[in-house]
Amino acid sequence: MANKRIVVIGGSAAGPKAAAKARRIDENAEVIIIQKDPDLSMASCGYPYYVGGYFDDRNQLLCTPTGIVRDPKFYLNAKAIEARTNTEVLAIDREAHTLSLSDTLTGETGSLRYDKLIIATGATPKMPPVPGADLKGITTLQSMQDADFLRKIRDDHSITKAVIIGGGLIGIETCEALQLAGMEITVIELLPQLLTFLDWDLAKLVENHVREKNANVITGNGIAAFLGESGTLTGVKLANGTELPCELAVVAIGVTPNVKLARASGLSIGVTGGIAVNEYLQTSDADIYACGDCIEVTHRLTGRKVLAPYGDLANLEGRVAGENAVLGNTVTFPGTIQTGICKVFDYAAGSTGLSETAARQLGYEDIVTVINASPDKPGFMQGALLVTKLVADRKSGKILGAQCIGPGNVNRQIAQWAMAVMGGLTVDDMVNADLPYAPPFSLAIDHGIAAAHLLQNKLKHRLKGLTPREVKNKLDAGQTPFILDVRGPDEFEQMRLGIGETLIPLGALRRRLSELPQDKEREIICYCKISLRGYEAALVLEANGWKNVRVMEGGIMAWPYAREK
Amino acid sequence: MANKRIVVIGGSAAGPKAAAKARRIDENAEVIIIQKDPDLSMASCGYPYYVGGYFDDRNQLLCTPTGIVRDPKFYLNAKAIEARTNTEVLAIDREAHTLSLSDTLTGETGSLRYDKLIIATGATPKMPPVPGADLKGITTLQSMQDADFLRKIRDDHSITKAVIIGGGLIGIETCEALQLAGMEITVIELLPQLLTFLDWDLAKLVENHVREKNANVITGNGIAAFLGESGTLTGVKLANGTELPCELAVVAIGVTPNVKLARASGLSIGVTGGIAVNEYLQTSDADIYACGDCIEVTHRLTGRKVLAPYGDLANLEGRVAGENAVLGNTVTFPGTIQTGICKVFDYAAGSTGLSETAARQLGYEDIVTVINASPDKPGFMQGALLVTKLVADRKSGKILGAQCIGPGNVNRQIAQWAMAVMGGLTVDDMVNADLPYAPPFSLAIDHGIAAAHLLQNKLKHRLKGLTPREVKNKLDAGQTPFILDVRGPDEFEQMRLGIGETLIPLGALRRRLSELPQDKEREIICYCKISLRGYEAALVLEANGWKNVRVMEGGIMAWPYAREK
Repeated sequence: MANKRIVVIGGSAAGPKAAAKARRIDENAEVIIIQKDPDLSMASCGYPYYVGGYFDDRNQLLCTPTGIVRDPKFYLNAKAIEARTNTEVLAIDREAHTLSLSDTLTGETGSLRYDKLIIATGATPKMPPVPGADLKGITTLQSMQDADFLRKIRDDHSITKAVIIGGGLIGIETCEALQLAGMEITVIELLPQLLTFLDWDLAKLVENHVREKNANVITGNGIAAFLGESGTLTGVKLANGTELPCELAVVAIGVTPNVKLARASGLSIGVTGGIAVNEYLQTSDADIYACGDCIEVTHRLTGRKVLAPYGDLANLEGRVAGENAVLGNTVTFPGTIQTGICKVFDYAAGSTGLSETAARQLGYEDIVTVINASPDKPGFMQGALLVTKLVADRKSGKILGAQCIGPGNVNRQIAQWAMAVMGGLTVDDMVNADLPYAPPFSLAIDHGIAAAHLLQNKLKHRLKGLTPREVKNKLDAGQTPFILDVRGPDEFEQMRLGIGETLIPLGALRRRLSELPQDKEREIICYCKISLRGYEAALVLEANGWKNVRVMEGGIMAWPYAREK
Repeated sequence: MANKRIVVIGGSAAGPKAAAKARRIDENAEVIIIQKDPDLSMASCGYPYYVGGYFDDRNQLLCTPTGIVRDPKFYLNAKAIEARTNTEVLAIDREAHTLSLSDTLTGETGSLRYDKLIIATGATPKMPPVPGADLKGITTLQSMQDADFLRKIRDDHSITKAVIIGGGLIGIETCEALQLAGMEITVIELLPQLLTFLDWDLAKLVENHVREKNANVITGNGIAAFLGESGTLTGVKLANGTELPCELAVVAIGVTPNVKLARASGLSIGVTGGIAVNEYLQTSDADIYACGDCIEVTHRLTGRKVLAPYGDLANLEGRVAGENAVLGNTVTFPGTIQTGICKVFDYAAGSTGLSETAARQLGYEDIVTVINASPDKPGFMQGALLVTKLVADRKSGKILGAQCIGPGNVNRQIAQWAMAVMGGLTVDDMVNADLPYAPPFSLAIDHGIAAAHLLQNKLKHRLKGLTPREVKNKLDAGQTPFILDVRGPDEFEQMRLGIGETLIPLGALRRRLSELPQDKEREIICYCKISLRGYEAALVLEANGWKNVRVMEGGIMAWPYAREK
């Protein structure tokens, strides 16, 4: 029997992983990668850090951990994989099991037979459909070429003002990179907030941090046109008419799966626009698998199809597609819970599972959420702030999602919550979680466990919370709750909201109850720095007969609006 | 109805947490803490960092996050809890529901009625039963007084040589603290390895790091006597006769639960020597709860009773005992999976669930393990090494435990694995885990997921591994496997084992097969730096007819013995 020929279209992340896995499963198979670009196996998630100057050697984006560039020679020698770069697949003839190819440098064409085909064609950055998009000075950050272009601008100090179109993950990473390169940056986001994987409450705290780093942020406003002179970008015009002068615009408004080849060959395309695959990552053609940013996958919580163009999933999917292409359908890919994290200057921001916004859009109605703020470690070990928002199903207590932001160790928190969501754990499971503790690594009661404690207190109707946004909305609507700050006088002197609050330190509260509204029905909103003392204060008031006491969740640390001081 | 009086014996971690929880549940209860020591709510896990000079203000160990010392006045004002320090409980009269008390300063005695009692008497450091244990210069690191004593030695530079008796978690933390204080340290451990929550393979790598930091380590040797002159320590004598001069000895050979009061009052003591409690943390007396280091708890994997004297669990247990003491048995404590982590100079070392050693001792026979070594992040983001050992049940694939060490982000890894163990996840669940990825935070395929990939490959009989120790034992026993290093020549020049290996880089292997033993039954052991290439090499050899090919797990990075270079 002749050796099986596995052909992989695409040489970025999922494609090479699929090819390598196929090779490891079958040393005798013929494995071929067809790659349109000149480079292979680019660590594309690293582009912003190259542009930002975290490292200087671009080859580090293309290397194995031991410094070997992953070029066709490497693939041939180390993996016995034939990698054809600068080669475009023009069409798939599914009946004949052949591809039509074209050399992008010479224009030479040819064809290639396959036994099993793996499509890993990736995704293409979206461009806003506005005038001027072809001006010089407009780019994305999606390819090695883009990274080289932006890095050169950084090294040349040739540009002073740049705009980022899009306040998502890549937009924010690019914002940091260009800011570090010394440019004056403005991030423009059509939606009312940055980083839509976060709920507004946390996104706004991140936005405040971005502004503190002297980047400008414009939300709720889209781009209407790119402006230029002699073919070169000179500015952007926003939907509200504002014009911003700039010499560089980086577009980061998301990506569209590359499904042209798949569609043209008659493969099923899913509802989201990605290639439809089953749990084995097999397309509607039994001899064709697909993986990476070009496919749609199952959301493990909702069961719905979603696009999940993330580098980590691309690698995991490639591994599954590669094995199944060789052995037949043996391993499955369960899908995504849309876990993500990004660095935002001195903060990190991460999310897993469903945000409150996403859950409500999907029709989850009986959910409960809580915001927790605390350091990640004890103060004597230089603990840094974390703010977490948890989302759970009220009836079952099942954790549906968690978001976390701040200068603290967001990475551990999101990893923990991702595992909790994958394990189907509940709030009750989490309140007694046995997690690694020592002062260099966490609080005695880990920030995440404390968040579960708060949520359990809410489920038991002990903690009656309001988010800072809900408090602000009440005040803006003219309501007049009694607002009680229960911190110490020193703390009040250093920092305070200035929203009409009364200061009564928790330690004095029980003997100063007469200073509270004597109408026991009056709404009282308690808080402190992070609202632990605020919660204790609320319990004291309730025990003394006040009927309508709330706690502002996360306290001052989660207040995203301007403060008096 | 009179208000309920909750009395808590013990004011360190579990006790104050139980008292605070009781107060939050019932503002009208009378809550009293009886504490023998002068201090309350000490962050005892922070002692080594105070001694080591990570911070200078001892009050930080006794403060709330906002800098208020948790003294009786604080408890009274902020929590309406009466905290009586310097007060010892002499006896519990269960029938009369009273305690006999003694003031440790004045000797004055008295009694105190309780409705519900919570015992949180903690644990006492073990002392080795050898001569000289009363010499001046011998201490533990268990109390504020111990911490003050050692910190003064540090600040005075009065001592040059110290020994640590015991190479467990606290011994190693103390070793680092005193090393940072400029002393010459020797750690003495009776067992053949440090940190017995790790298997030997990983413990030995940690020991190498401790030695690199110029601390001396003696394993497999216990203390026979403390030596002294005029009542002051001058040295220690070991079981093998060695005498080590030293002016300071810190004993850290574990703790014994303080159950004297409980035992004297007739409460059930468990098989491990801790106070026996049910899932509600209720003792054999329905009106008495117990929590913290003095109790035994259930191991969540094995169902057996174990001692788990950890600060994080003490807090969680306190919360449960406090609530149940007020409301009756409403919340449960599920037990421990014995998750732990400690800082060891530039390394961290952590573990969750069962080690291989523990699993085998408990009779788990059909288990499978794997060692994985890799950076925690990409090289271009200054990734640092992690070495993980996973333990799983072969039949079900269920994760039984994970250990991780190294300069990389051990904290996230152990947190992840702890959640996996709590969720009952399997190797198959972990291979496609959706975890937070961005280059500042992890590899595209997270180190932990890669470990699961390896274990899956072992379960599928694709990866046939040997630990470095198994390889060394073969060589020491005179066996002559063909040893194949498949790294590049540059790497070989910089670092190599020197155990008779042949270098054939992976990229040249397929065309240099003739250089391998032509006896296809001969054992061949492949490795590289971390054994990813080693694994690929093994697959190439197997496909070419070699029948007895093994991979040395973790590669050179997991080799704990001396290297040629």
